[in-house]
Amino acid sequence: MNVRGEHYRTVWLERRTVRMINQPLIPHSFEIVDLKDYRETAEAIRNMVVRGAGAIGATAGFGMAQAALQAPAEDPVAFIEKAAEVLRATRPTAQDLFYAIDRVLAAALAGPRERIAEIAVAEANAIADEGAERGEAIGKAGAELIKDGCRILTHCNAGWLAFVDWGSALSPIYVARRQGKRLFVFADETRPRCQGARLTAWELAGEGVPHAVIADNAAGHYMRAGEIDMVIVGSDRIAANGDVANKIGTYEKAVLAKENGIPFYVAAPTSTIDMNCPTGDDIPIEERSEDEVLYMFGKDDEGKMTRARIAPAETHARNPAFDVTPAKYVTAIITENGIVEPGETGTERE
Amino acid sequence: MNVRGEHYRTVWLERRTVRMINQPLIPHSFEIVDLKDYRETAEAIRNMVVRGAGAIGATAGFGMAQAALQAPAEDPVAFIEKAAEVLRATRPTAQDLFYAIDRVLAAALAGPRERIAEIAVAEANAIADEGAERGEAIGKAGAELIKDGCRILTHCNAGWLAFVDWGSALSPIYVARRQGKRLFVFADETRPRCQGARLTAWELAGEGVPHAVIADNAAGHYMRAGEIDMVIVGSDRIAANGDVANKIGTYEKAVLAKENGIPFYVAAPTSTIDMNCPTGDDIPIEERSEDEVLYMFGKDDEGKMTRARIAPAETHARNPAFDVTPAKYVTAIITENGIVEPGETGTERE
Repeated sequence: MNVRGEHYRTVWLERRTVRMINQPLIPHSFEIVDLKDYRETAEAIRNMVVRGAGAIGATAGFGMAQAALQAPAEDPVAFIEKAAEVLRATRPTAQDLFYAIDRVLAAALAGPRERIAEIAVAEANAIADEGAERGEAIGKAGAELIKDGCRILTHCNAGWLAFVDWGSALSPIYVARRQGKRLFVFADETRPRCQGARLTAWELAGEGVPHAVIADNAAGHYMRAGEIDMVIVGSDRIAANGDVANKIGTYEKAVLAKENGIPFYVAAPTSTIDMNCPTGDDIPIEERSEDEVLYMFGKDDEGKMTRARIAPAETHARNPAFDVTPAKYVTAIITENGIVEPGETGTERE
Repeated sequence: MNVRGEHYRTVWLERRTVRMINQPLIPHSFEIVDLKDYRETAEAIRNMVVRGAGAIGATAGFGMAQAALQAPAEDPVAFIEKAAEVLRATRPTAQDLFYAIDRVLAAALAGPRERIAEIAVAEANAIADEGAERGEAIGKAGAELIKDGCRILTHCNAGWLAFVDWGSALSPIYVARRQGKRLFVFADETRPRCQGARLTAWELAGEGVPHAVIADNAAGHYMRAGEIDMVIVGSDRIAANGDVANKIGTYEKAVLAKENGIPFYVAAPTSTIDMNCPTGDDIPIEERSEDEVLYMFGKDDEGKMTRARIAPAETHARNPAFDVTPAKYVTAIITENGIVEPGETGTERE
């Protein structure tokens, strides 16, 4: 999407360097990070320099390509398999991560040994390109659901920063906006990492979409007040039965939407669907550092990045990064192939 | 309750000075603020130097007493009536504020003109003493509901800092703890002002109650995971039909508790019940400054209080401070007179 008039993707490969937008600095500054080694790329995934299901997947694909470029000519396979292992260990929940690693690995191993790097690079680029195309297709499918004047709630950031381009949950909003529809977006701030207040608000401002950030606590209030017409969120993994893993708090919004008769949509590429996970209870939920809850991060009045401790020194926190929304709360899933009921996901991947 | 071995109330009157714990500094430092004029006392309510339904009420009562002490002997009534007006305009939602102002005003006006200050001071002290006693009575009644090993979720701070002493939602926890019951408390951090992470965690740490702070988003996850046995929250105002106004996000937790079959208790003194409000929709909901959402406040690594902007410069926020939980989600209300079903509140005040 556009940043100050220039088109950017969230992550790309230039020769042997993975380049990505430094997402923890958004919205305060816009910087590109250069990663010269696949281990640095893995570290960037773990530290959430890049985050969001699709962007993590594309980055992992590029990390594999980078490993293939770094691999010793005499024995590239062991090196690449080791890289797959390192990249797999970075984040446990996002299905796209495993999908991209496995896909680049399989393509690289299937071809002739001397072309392994070339094949890996082509496959990683294909994953990124498909990600961007799928984002746009999700946008076109989802925009059909958005009426003129619609007031939409979203949670976390499933925008273009979470993918390679376009995004999942925000893509229908961008398409509807370009179709000239009037919209208003309530962006949950999405504690603890505030991806809604930081990233979604930054994206919406960049695309000129009218919006307000709200505390996560306020979403139910606005639903009950009749000020929200629909909810659209993304997903990190969808189980075969249609249960949806997404950012912590998604389950709360889904239950509240159902209670208030508001449609609740999940927008995600079909690569998010994990047919090997029978139900949501089989999806591993990452527990992250308690410091994400005990501290707040932002820019102080002098323009310096700062962190501020909120809780007493002796207090601990618990910090599950994701939750599971059972399929019964999901009105429909918006995919690049169209809109499906959660019960139909089993046939969608074929 | 105890602070470093000394007993404190949240607010008290010494001669003509209202003294109170400076709550925005908790948990980082413990300071007492001295207010010499009722207008300063009103400002302290507005700026949330003191907050929480019961503490606001007691403070407003002391502000009225202070006004009576400041009033010119020749025409004290106009001065005191003006003070009531100023104090009434500080915060719109808490029923206890209006209750205390009206009660001190009525008592002062009913007595002989020359004893007006003495009567106002006695009435204000009586309100504070009753608040402390009611807090303890709520604790004793509520502790009956808490089984050994219970895991309790609470939202915001309805502890002793929110009252004169003991508190409402936390009082049963303190009583149960002193009865030797094993407990674990999940404290919602309670964005945007983080009273859960700051105040509730500080109180629980002070009383030695095992606890963890969680992002508000995580409460539903733990309910669904079967890790929460009951929810106890406070209230700023209860309508005649049992609808409950409380800190923003309470409604979300109530819906989620019902969905997961978890009892949801509201602990509040009967003075919180407003028989002049037929339903929750008649309770005015305060909208506070958007800066509370757009910035985070805390202590930086050098120990200095700091604020950090989270959202982009061009982004606005909406910030309702309270929401209304319809009576159907409330299992029971814990009052100083015992435990009542929400439908029974109409008779409770008589």
